Amino acid sequence: MFGTMLDTPLLVSRILEHAAERHASSTVTGFVGDMQPRTTRFDVVAARAAATAHALADLGVGDGDVVAVLSGSRTEVVESLFAIPSMGAVVLAVNILRSRSFLLAALRDNDVSVLLVDPELMSVALEVVADLEHVRHLVVFDSHVPGHIVDHSGDDHDVEFHALEALLDGRPTTYPWPELDERTAAALAYTSGTTGLSKAVAFTHRSIWLHSMEMCMAESAALRSGDTVLTTVPMYHVLSWGLPYAAFMTGASLITARPRPGQAMHTGRDLAELLATFRPNKVATTPASLQRLLRRLETNPQPLGHLGEVLVGGSPVPEALFDAFVTRHGVTIMQAYGLTESSPIATFARADPHSSATHRRAQILGQGRFPAGVEARVVEAGRILPNDGWSVGELQIRGPWVTARYLGDEATDRFVDGWLRTGDMATISPRGYLDVVDRVDDIIASGGELISSVELEHAVLREERVADAAVIGVPDERWGNRPLVLVHLKPGATATARALWEALDGHVELWKRPDHWAFVDDIPRTSVGKYDKRAIRSLHADGAYRVTTISPGATS
Amino acid sequence: MFGTMLDTPLLVSRILEHAAERHASSTVTGFVGDMQPRTTRFDVVAARAAATAHALADLGVGDGDVVAVLSGSRTEVVESLFAIPSMGAVVLAVNILRSRSFLLAALRDNDVSVLLVDPELMSVALEVVADLEHVRHLVVFDSHVPGHIVDHSGDDHDVEFHALEALLDGRPTTYPWPELDERTAAALAYTSGTTGLSKAVAFTHRSIWLHSMEMCMAESAALRSGDTVLTTVPMYHVLSWGLPYAAFMTGASLITARPRPGQAMHTGRDLAELLATFRPNKVATTPASLQRLLRRLETNPQPLGHLGEVLVGGSPVPEALFDAFVTRHGVTIMQAYGLTESSPIATFARADPHSSATHRRAQILGQGRFPAGVEARVVEAGRILPNDGWSVGELQIRGPWVTARYLGDEATDRFVDGWLRTGDMATISPRGYLDVVDRVDDIIASGGELISSVELEHAVLREERVADAAVIGVPDERWGNRPLVLVHLKPGATATARALWEALDGHVELWKRPDHWAFVDDIPRTSVGKYDKRAIRSLHADGAYRVTTISPGATS
Repeated sequence: MFGTMLDTPLLVSRILEHAAERHASSTVTGFVGDMQPRTTRFDVVAARAAATAHALADLGVGDGDVVAVLSGSRTEVVESLFAIPSMGAVVLAVNILRSRSFLLAALRDNDVSVLLVDPELMSVALEVVADLEHVRHLVVFDSHVPGHIVDHSGDDHDVEFHALEALLDGRPTTYPWPELDERTAAALAYTSGTTGLSKAVAFTHRSIWLHSMEMCMAESAALRSGDTVLTTVPMYHVLSWGLPYAAFMTGASLITARPRPGQAMHTGRDLAELLATFRPNKVATTPASLQRLLRRLETNPQPLGHLGEVLVGGSPVPEALFDAFVTRHGVTIMQAYGLTESSPIATFARADPHSSATHRRAQILGQGRFPAGVEARVVEAGRILPNDGWSVGELQIRGPWVTARYLGDEATDRFVDGWLRTGDMATISPRGYLDVVDRVDDIIASGGELISSVELEHAVLREERVADAAVIGVPDERWGNRPLVLVHLKPGATATARALWEALDGHVELWKRPDHWAFVDDIPRTSVGKYDKRAIRSLHADGAYRVTTISPGATS
Repeated sequence: MFGTMLDTPLLVSRILEHAAERHASSTVTGFVGDMQPRTTRFDVVAARAAATAHALADLGVGDGDVVAVLSGSRTEVVESLFAIPSMGAVVLAVNILRSRSFLLAALRDNDVSVLLVDPELMSVALEVVADLEHVRHLVVFDSHVPGHIVDHSGDDHDVEFHALEALLDGRPTTYPWPELDERTAAALAYTSGTTGLSKAVAFTHRSIWLHSMEMCMAESAALRSGDTVLTTVPMYHVLSWGLPYAAFMTGASLITARPRPGQAMHTGRDLAELLATFRPNKVATTPASLQRLLRRLETNPQPLGHLGEVLVGGSPVPEALFDAFVTRHGVTIMQAYGLTESSPIATFARADPHSSATHRRAQILGQGRFPAGVEARVVEAGRILPNDGWSVGELQIRGPWVTARYLGDEATDRFVDGWLRTGDMATISPRGYLDVVDRVDDIIASGGELISSVELEHAVLREERVADAAVIGVPDERWGNRPLVLVHLKPGATATARALWEALDGHVELWKRPDHWAFVDDIPRTSVGKYDKRAIRSLHADGAYRVTTISPGATS
């Protein structure tokens, strides 16, 4: 027996119309050039999205076609995130920091014929497009196409160049958004590929709605009208964690701050300036960015009273970093856990008021609690482990905003009985709190015991002189594997491996402590700011690091 | 092109499992006897719900069967609200305050064969069951069936009597909840029938999920883990506004406080005691209950610092009542608007921080803003009016938790082009705020102008001596209709009609003011606590009121 309720599909176009009508004066701020802000009201975003859809339809974009966006965090990207899915096509915000071969594959695999491009990235676009016969239209986020580019046209194959503003000129500012099936693909996102080849998932209109509602729930990110949310997470990183859709759903103003051109991350100074300029009450960022901000604040303090809460994801937040913000700056850090495959946010670390103070601290220092809609379990060797807070296994999740498969990849081993294998080793507490111990590929199996590289990194980072630290496992004749730590000291600081090893007293058991230490000027990171441990392992294998080995028995 | 996300259906069973696992120690408190609280943890509710489902399956309850619950607000009702939909059947919490003929029709129309009954309501149940051949099982919320009732068995037809606790004894505490289509009917609710016959809607698993997520959004009721929510809205009034499902979704503890046996509403004293005992941080109630509480607090003040927010729905909150709570008691009132047909909550009155102070006050004094998911428009004579904040028309809404039809009633005029006609005259502001002017049937057409009976009621209630006031339109030779106000004075207070008429100076235009006044000891209300204007009109037609008519020109 079916109920009597309306079968209104959950569509991206409905979020847009809601925002345009009821939160017209909320704004999106993007950046052009060397950090020049550009602010657009939600109603203008909606009008421009409608005009964009008309323009794209004229360029031949039809149902299910993938339209790619190659851009930093401009407001036009947010317009595209609404226009393209709403008209029935699929948006792909390409990670501009990835390799040329990745870009080529992403555009080729999805038969992209229309590419929207940031003028600052024209040279990248032109280079890629030259190799892709199916690209027919290149639309630049500008009022005219530069002459030298028009000349380029016809060099390789028939690409037409358009200026977006010229295309939009005179277009209607409403569009008859189609009544799609809510399971229709709305947006593609590629995994970062830290553990292998990048794979794509296709978010649906439905999954975007449910994830957005979740981001607005009081127990989660609690986005609401009147919020000013600064995100340092670029649009091409899982659509900045889905923040544009959640912000439009509830009327939160959004500042999407990409790093300066040519940089992979914001500097601490840029972050501090963004905070001072926009005075956001919420920030979404990564531990790496937060670490830089903290160092900046040490030398250049500034008031942060406007900042209610910082949502941090991407990798676990070191306890030292967490405490520094809470105690020195009075800022609340809320961790979140997720993956591209989970839209991405799957947990939020708010403490359970029913728990003891000790438990509450553990809850907020971990990755947080799964909301209704995300089922989770930890599995070891095919056995489901109890949620007791200490049994470590691979985390597996499923739910309506978790992917069931990768695009065009039926033969993957990443799914078991409908559950997504996250590749993270974790525990789940009786109250449903997640604690990520390590990546499956990064955990160090030493003499039958497991050592978390993340735990060691966080412990080494407690030391005042250490700016950055990454741990990998290296082969060991006796134990199988033992930890090697790369240490990046703060400017002017000095320390011996032995001294840092001894500073772990009281924090890390003797048998877990890193035997091998290397002092470096730079630790490789991926395009999403995580330690690039594949690169570190490869560099180490090539003898790139000068390693000091501690013999625990010796005296310093 | 479909996306890759999991098609996990949104099911009531998933809310239950989430709550049992992650919010095990949150609680539901119901009441038995003369306000004796009974508290049950969420994990126990889940275990008992599973056992209940096993028991009901043994009694022959199958997919799509409607199981009725005839009870006050006991914790067993909440267990039923989860058990019955989760197993694939449909729960109907029958309004115990409605007429016998309504109860009979509701049970007959839905072919109810199993009835769950509060022991306090056994006599009502027995009386009804005697007339219903298809009722086969009567399950009483108790550990044994009283002897005199067992004897009753077989009098009329084959009804088996069971004690719930005996049925549950030894049952498994888990149940293989089926993977239903999320559009499956989960719960029935009847409209209050203020404007005609009661009609039923069938909420779906999907609509319950979406409505629950909405209730947890920061911009809406913001339910969250750690909340203690007291609801005075009985479970048989649109499932206490869907609060059990929302509470289980996020871990809020819930106190479901029905009035004392035989009473339609809580007394002010009972409400004050509930607040003092349970110290809730959120309350869900009606303006009528709030009015009673206010009067109680005038003579018996008590600290209300625990109370963060009061969610008020059912009818518009008089400005005087609103201000009294804010200024005298420091309690924030948040209005909500909805109907049985909209699950029920369709708006929440949180101010828009982008608005001016004047507008913000108007926003919170009105019925609030429509969230994403509820589309709304005002229509007059088939024309859609602009959302300008002053054009009055009938409010029409649609969305995924709004009904598309009534059960078994295809020929209704309550739907237009897929929109639900709410029967409320209202304005919508440019920012999407709703202001309900009056019921379509209650607004007073006077000389070509419309007078809101609600506006007059609120204005009369400003007067310190007035305890309660209701306005209807009565026929007038010259103007077509003119307002008649029933006034219930506070104990010991005296006032003339002329004095109250003059007290409207500065608040109500002369031409709108009530010509006709009647002082009464009691104003008829419906079973949901709204003024029963059909009854008032009928009583007035029968000459039940002594009416004084004011002649505006005369002196007092």
